[in-house]
Amino acid sequence: MHRSGIQLSIALLALFTTATASSQTPPKFSRSDLAAAEALLERAQSDSTAYRLAESLTTEVGPRFSGSPGDRAAVAWAQEQMRRLGFENIHTQEVDVPQWVRGEAEFAVLEPWPQPMPALALGGTVGTRDAGIEAEAVMVKDLAALAELPTGAVKDRIVFFNNPIERRRDWVEYSRAVSVRGAGPSAASALGAVGVVIRSLSTSAQRFPHTGGSRQPQDVPRIPAVAISNPDADALARQFASSQTVRLRIKSTARDLPKQRSANVIGEIPGTDLAHEIVILGAHLDSWDVGVGAVDNASGVGIVLTAAHLIRAQGLKPRRTLRVVLFANEENGSAGSRAYAAAQEQTLANHVLGIEADYGAGPVWQFSTRVHPADVGVIDQMYRVLRPLKMDRGTNEAPGGADLSPLVARGMPILGPELDGTYYLDVHHTANDTMSQVDPAAIRQSAATYAVGVWLGAQYPGKWQRLEPKAPRR
Amino acid sequence: MHRSGIQLSIALLALFTTATASSQTPPKFSRSDLAAAEALLERAQSDSTAYRLAESLTTEVGPRFSGSPGDRAAVAWAQEQMRRLGFENIHTQEVDVPQWVRGEAEFAVLEPWPQPMPALALGGTVGTRDAGIEAEAVMVKDLAALAELPTGAVKDRIVFFNNPIERRRDWVEYSRAVSVRGAGPSAASALGAVGVVIRSLSTSAQRFPHTGGSRQPQDVPRIPAVAISNPDADALARQFASSQTVRLRIKSTARDLPKQRSANVIGEIPGTDLAHEIVILGAHLDSWDVGVGAVDNASGVGIVLTAAHLIRAQGLKPRRTLRVVLFANEENGSAGSRAYAAAQEQTLANHVLGIEADYGAGPVWQFSTRVHPADVGVIDQMYRVLRPLKMDRGTNEAPGGADLSPLVARGMPILGPELDGTYYLDVHHTANDTMSQVDPAAIRQSAATYAVGVWLGAQYPGKWQRLEPKAPRR
Repeated sequence: MHRSGIQLSIALLALFTTATASSQTPPKFSRSDLAAAEALLERAQSDSTAYRLAESLTTEVGPRFSGSPGDRAAVAWAQEQMRRLGFENIHTQEVDVPQWVRGEAEFAVLEPWPQPMPALALGGTVGTRDAGIEAEAVMVKDLAALAELPTGAVKDRIVFFNNPIERRRDWVEYSRAVSVRGAGPSAASALGAVGVVIRSLSTSAQRFPHTGGSRQPQDVPRIPAVAISNPDADALARQFASSQTVRLRIKSTARDLPKQRSANVIGEIPGTDLAHEIVILGAHLDSWDVGVGAVDNASGVGIVLTAAHLIRAQGLKPRRTLRVVLFANEENGSAGSRAYAAAQEQTLANHVLGIEADYGAGPVWQFSTRVHPADVGVIDQMYRVLRPLKMDRGTNEAPGGADLSPLVARGMPILGPELDGTYYLDVHHTANDTMSQVDPAAIRQSAATYAVGVWLGAQYPGKWQRLEPKAPRR
Repeated sequence: MHRSGIQLSIALLALFTTATASSQTPPKFSRSDLAAAEALLERAQSDSTAYRLAESLTTEVGPRFSGSPGDRAAVAWAQEQMRRLGFENIHTQEVDVPQWVRGEAEFAVLEPWPQPMPALALGGTVGTRDAGIEAEAVMVKDLAALAELPTGAVKDRIVFFNNPIERRRDWVEYSRAVSVRGAGPSAASALGAVGVVIRSLSTSAQRFPHTGGSRQPQDVPRIPAVAISNPDADALARQFASSQTVRLRIKSTARDLPKQRSANVIGEIPGTDLAHEIVILGAHLDSWDVGVGAVDNASGVGIVLTAAHLIRAQGLKPRRTLRVVLFANEENGSAGSRAYAAAQEQTLANHVLGIEADYGAGPVWQFSTRVHPADVGVIDQMYRVLRPLKMDRGTNEAPGGADLSPLVARGMPILGPELDGTYYLDVHHTANDTMSQVDPAAIRQSAATYAVGVWLGAQYPGKWQRLEPKAPRR
C-alpha cells in the first residue's frame, strides 16, 4: 500500500462525520445466516488458500510493478485463479498505467568519511546526469524543519531528511511520516536543492532501503531523490555529528517511459434476491519492483479471493453480489482505482458495502468499520461471530484503503478490519518483501475475518445506510 | 570470520589431545591480582570503549576488504586508536594480500517462472563472460548428494546447493555447512558444471545473500558461483517443485586484480618481570566488502583493543606483555595470520597464551579454553571472577579463531570465550552487517570477559604449559 499525507486529515474528518451516536436498533441476522457464518469461520480456520495464493502469485509471477511484464503476467494469473476458484463474470477493465523505471541508484558519502550506502530511488523521481550529482548536504528532520531554515540554506545542496518512525500496530505513525517521502523532494526543490535523500519510512534495523511514491508537482523542477535504510541513516547522522562538512553523491538512472496497458481484474459470486447490490472486496494486484510483493500485496489478494471463494465453497448463496476487484497501479498512481470509480459512475449507489485488504497478512487485531451510525449495531452482531478469532471490537473510524477511497468518498460504508502492522513497515516497499515474511496462521485468521464479514455483509436483512459524501482522497 | 570445513575435524582432534584429566593443583592467583581483576570487571561493565571503537571503525572507515582503499584506511585508523588508547611499541607488519573484486552479480530464474533474485558472488570465484551464462539447473542438498548423482548429471549445468542451516548459539552448524561454500564450486566444476548457486550460509529469513570465501583449487576450472538468500532459495526450490525444467542465468563481473599491500597492526602493553612472555590478543581488521563489518569484525577489534586498554587505564602493570595483533586479510586468504606466524618463527615459544575475538559482539555464554590439562585449574580460578557476567564454565575444547590457529597448532594454549552466535549467521558476510546489529550491553560484557581473562592470564604465577603441536589448519 501507499498512503498520502492527506489521508490522516480525512480520517479525522471522517470521525466527525460518522461519530454521531445512534439509538436505532438494526434488524437482526437470521439464525441460519449466523449458523452459516459460524461454519464458515470454522472452515476458514483450517484453510490455507490465502497463503497458497500469495505463494503462487509471488513464485509464478514475482514482482509486478505497473507497466512491467510482471504486471501483465499478474493480470493473467488473477483471471486464471478466479476461474479455478469458481468465480463468475470474470473480466478485466483495461487501464493505462505509468511506466516509471527505477534503473540503478548509487549513493555515497564523499566527505568527511567516504563510504557507499545502498539506496533506492523514490518512485516518480528523475534520474541524475550520467556523472551523478555531488553536493554539500544539509540534514533536517522533516518538512517543518526544512521550512524553518534560513533563506538559501539548501540552495544547490542535497537535503537529508532524517525522520525516524516508531513501531506501532496501527497505521498512524506512517501516515504522519509519509509526508517526507511524498512532499520532501518537491519541497526541497522549491528551495533550490539539487537532490534529496530520506531516511526510509521503516521500523527495521535491517539494511533495506524502502522505496515508495513521491509527488512530482508541475510547478517545481523534479530532482533526484533516494531512500537509505535506518542503519545507514544513523551512520550518516554520525558523519553530520562530526561537525565536518558532509558531501554526498547521488547517481540514479530512474526515468519515465511511455504508459502501458494494465487492467483491473474483476470476478463475482453472484447474489440472489439482492443481486443488484454489490459488496465489493478490493485489493491491489500490482507491487513495487524491488521485492516480490508478498505482504504488499499478494497477501491482500489472497485474503479477498479466499474470502469470496470460501463462501462459494461452503455452498452458500449470498443475497447480495460479492465482487472482487484486483486493482491495477495502486502503488504509483492509483489509475486502477480511479478508472473503476469512473466506469461505475452511474452505479456507485449499488456498491452498498466495501472491504479492502492492503496492510499485510494480519492477523486482524481490531474489527473497525466506517458505517452509518445507524448500522453500528449490525457490526456488533458480526463481531460476536468473529470474537473467537481473538480481535478487539475496533472503532467506527477505520482508515480504509486507497483503492476503495473514491467509493468511500461517495458514501459507501466499509468494513475495515485492522491488520496488525507491527512489522509491516519493516518489510513493505523493500527487496525483503518475500513469502518468508508472511505468517500462515496470520493470513488464515485474516481471510477468515474477511469471509465472515463479507458473508454477513451480504446477508444483512436491513439496508446498508450510506455515509455523508466527502471529498475523495486524491 | 570465515571457517574452513577442516576446522571441525581439528576441533574434534583437539578434544582427544587435551581431554586427558589432570589431578595437579596449579598455583593460585595472588589476592591483589584477584582484587585487581574484580575492580577491572567492575570498571569494564560500565565502559563503552569497545562499542565506540566499533562505531568509529565502521563510520570513519566502513568496508575494508583486503586490497581496497578501506583496507589501507583501517590500518591507519588502527594505529591512531592504539596511540590514543595508550599502547606502546605500535608498529605494522606489511603483508601482500589478494585483491579480488566482486563487481556485480546478476541472478535470475528464466524458466519455468522468470524472476530476478539478489545474489552475491562467492569470494575468489571468476566472473562470467559479458553475456552471462544460461543453463538448465540441478538442485542438490550438499556435496554428498552431488557425489551421488549419476555420471554426467550436472555436465554443462548450473548446480543449486540448497542446504539450510539451523540457528544455534555455537558454531557447530556453520562448520558443518560451510563445506558447500568452500568446496561446492570446485566439486561441481570437477563434474562438468558451468556454474553454481548456493543457499546462503544464513539463519535469517531476511533477503540478504551472504558472501564468503570459496576454495579455488588449481586442478579444476574455476566457475562462477553466487549465493542467494534463504527466502530466494525457498522460492527457487518451489520452482523445482513444479517438476518443470528450471533454467537459470548467472552474470558476474568478479575478477582478480594484482596483489596489494596491507598490514597487520601491532601494539603492546609491555610486561614487567615476565615481559618476554607474550599474551597475544588477536582480531582481524579486514572485512568483507558488502557491509561495514560491524559484527565481523569491528566488534572483535573493539573487544581486544578495549581489553588491553582497560588494564592500562586501571593503572595495572601486567607481568607478561600484552600484545594486540589486528590481522590483515582473514576473510579471503589469511595472509596476515600466516605472515605473523612466519615472522615469529624463532619466538613462537614466547607466545604463552592467546585469545581471539572473531565471532561477533557477544555476549560470552561460556568461558571455554584450550589449555594444557594441568592448567585447567587456573581457568577455574578465572571463572570464579567472571561468573557475575553470567556465563557458563565452558569446555576445554574451544574452537578458537582462524588468525591464531598457526600458533595454536604449534602448541600455544588459548582462552576461548564463546560468544553467543544465535544471530551471528543472520548478519555476517552480508550488506546488513552494520552497527544496528551490535548490542552495546553484549559487547561490553565481552570486553569485560576478555579484559579479566587477559589480565589474569598475564599474572598467572605458574608457567603456562604448552599443548601438543599438531598440523596447522591450512
